[in-house]
Amino acid sequence: MFEALLSKALILKRIVEALKELVTDVNFECTPAGISLQAMDASHVALVTFILDANGFDEFRCDRAQTLGLSITNLGKILKCAENDDRVQIRAEDNASIITFIFEGKDDDKVSEFNLNLLNLDSEHLGIPEQEYPCVITLPSAEFTRICRDMSQMTETLAIEVTKQSVHFKVGGDIGEGKISLKPKNDGKNKVHLEVNENVSCSYALRYLNLFNKGASLGDEAVLMIATDLPLVLIFNFELGVLKYYLAPKVSED
Amino acid sequence: MFEALLSKALILKRIVEALKELVTDVNFECTPAGISLQAMDASHVALVTFILDANGFDEFRCDRAQTLGLSITNLGKILKCAENDDRVQIRAEDNASIITFIFEGKDDDKVSEFNLNLLNLDSEHLGIPEQEYPCVITLPSAEFTRICRDMSQMTETLAIEVTKQSVHFKVGGDIGEGKISLKPKNDGKNKVHLEVNENVSCSYALRYLNLFNKGASLGDEAVLMIATDLPLVLIFNFELGVLKYYLAPKVSED
Amino acid sequence: MFEALLSKALILKRIVEALKELVTDVNFECTPAGISLQAMDASHVALVTFILDANGFDEFRCDRAQTLGLSITNLGKILKCAENDDRVQIRAEDNASIITFIFEGKDDDKVSEFNLNLLNLDSEHLGIPEQEYPCVITLPSAEFTRICRDMSQMTETLAIEVTKQSVHFKVGGDIGEGKISLKPKNDGKNKVHLEVNENVSCSYALRYLNLFNKGASLGDEAVLMIATDLPLVLIFNFELGVLKYYLAPKVSED
Repeated sequence: MFEALLSKALILKRIVEALKELVTDVNFECTPAGISLQAMDASHVALVTFILDANGFDEFRCDRAQTLGLSITNLGKILKCAENDDRVQIRAEDNASIITFIFEGKDDDKVSEFNLNLLNLDSEHLGIPEQEYPCVITLPSAEFTRICRDMSQMTETLAIEVTKQSVHFKVGGDIGEGKISLKPKNDGKNKVHLEVNENVSCSYALRYLNLFNKGASLGDEAVLMIATDLPLVLIFNFELGVLKYYLAPKVSED
Repeated sequence: MFEALLSKALILKRIVEALKELVTDVNFECTPAGISLQAMDASHVALVTFILDANGFDEFRCDRAQTLGLSITNLGKILKCAENDDRVQIRAEDNASIITFIFEGKDDDKVSEFNLNLLNLDSEHLGIPEQEYPCVITLPSAEFTRICRDMSQMTETLAIEVTKQSVHFKVGGDIGEGKISLKPKNDGKNKVHLEVNENVSCSYALRYLNLFNKGASLGDEAVLMIATDLPLVLIFNFELGVLKYYLAPKVSED
Repeated sequence: MFEALLSKALILKRIVEALKELVTDVNFECTPAGISLQAMDASHVALVTFILDANGFDEFRCDRAQTLGLSITNLGKILKCAENDDRVQIRAEDNASIITFIFEGKDDDKVSEFNLNLLNLDSEHLGIPEQEYPCVITLPSAEFTRICRDMSQMTETLAIEVTKQSVHFKVGGDIGEGKISLKPKNDGKNKVHLEVNENVSCSYALRYLNLFNKGASLGDEAVLMIATDLPLVLIFNFELGVLKYYLAPKVSED
């Protein structure tokens, strides 16, 4: 038996938003410690993972580890029927073919109950080694979202250049070239922090960065780890756990 | 001579919104008692009627009964030129070929006058017998709108099941199944009231229910009457009269 | 060397909005007195001009007159990267092949720098004689925008009729006919003022008037000059200068 209770549907809606344009059918791995996910996009270019900590839920029970195959699209559809403030109950029997979501308002006079068919999906779990990154950039997630969105009007590739003094987001193309530069600052939730052991300059596909930024509604802060020979990692921490996106650099233009 | 004065264009805009996706060319039947309409959608599946009470207008004069054939699309276009708070004057001579709408702001320094060509339409007036319905559900129109809209993401058919204790809105399909349940409550404008002489379970095309809900801006309260062997009636009462939509049930899936 | 400093990017964004649906590649003529532009739309039906006064800039330096050929589309793209309140620095060397735009927030910790490639465009500067117009209509730009937008739902041509007492905006077509009438009033920023030496009635293509009204965000007041045998001129005055649109009348329908 798997059973979990969340006090607000909003967080589940945001998780689905963070995933649904990148992946379609995914396995939720449920254990007594929480729920985890690892999924590649259809073109096998980007990877997304999350861990939802059992302690972050109002109630959490998972008698034995089980894999729940879910359509993110369909989960998104039923979540439209939940108000942001609705309590959410999630339930699946052992070896179940369906998973049940129950949304309840504070008044108890409206109850929405949905049974989603579970999917039998191939599970190809990658071991992702914990890596040391020479550059770790912490910046407001709204700022990074805006930079990627605005820059993608001009071109498809974003170069990120980091030194101890500043981080540059650079684009080039037929129309000319552009560069947005941020310096570290310690201004509460607008904080920009650079942890740089080695200058790095790498290029990434803006299309994927824009998809990753759908996760920005989960956390005010984005953590960006880059290295020449490792995939970029974009991390959003939130009350229930952590969401990570991975993307390999493009072959450098220099 | 037909002449009517409305203190606010907004109500006329809302009536047009309530009609324009369901019907195109319609006959307004004007009598000294008011204006009535009865129209079927193009596929002859749904019916909409309204009665606008002469007493609801600021002024109303109709020397003799006449039928005014109007394009709802064109009426919608000229209403775009009216501010919500504009006074509206409507005028047509006996046997006229045009109908005149005059919109005036409170300052009198802006006047908009439109002459719409009247249409000569076949008039097939159905006698709709007053029927007793075993189930009458009163609920906030915004709630019913939301349920229908959200549920239509999943499937094309909505089953409505009513007992004395609660009303269930149910859908089923490839992705699983869902059910939203409301219990009676007496909470001012969020009131849910069930008048049930007999349990009923019927299915309806969500596409039409969604079109009907365009009328929800006219009234905070929706009244839903259902029976196994009669068309569903969805009723919105408003300051000027009453708007009713009719839809036959689908053949039950049970 | 050309160099200019603007205290707010917003005004530059609005200028680009005012131009970008009408023209694509244009020459900015820079002189010590300011920046001017004159451009025809692709179909050579409408003309737009502006003059930005050097004194309106926070700083302005133009060592010698030069022509800067710019893609309005690309300028619009880089301006998306500027916040409305950002300071803007514009810079081009003599005989330069690029023009540089630098956007800076008030905190100095974010700097965006873009180099746009300059274009080599044919320059066909028309001498536009200063003409006396028999009718000069001053009205709120939002009002004129709304009238043109609403009327264009009904037809493609707007007739403007002016007398000393009022200005009429008239449309006609298959669906009927309409007329919006404004009388002079002296009501602060809602002022309507008519300066009429001769009654005039002319017709214009609504498509172009709607494009011209993109300039309305620059000024609360629109000045409309019309004459039977001269192009309509629509003028928006703003803190940095003046924007003018020209459009020849259609052959009168009378």
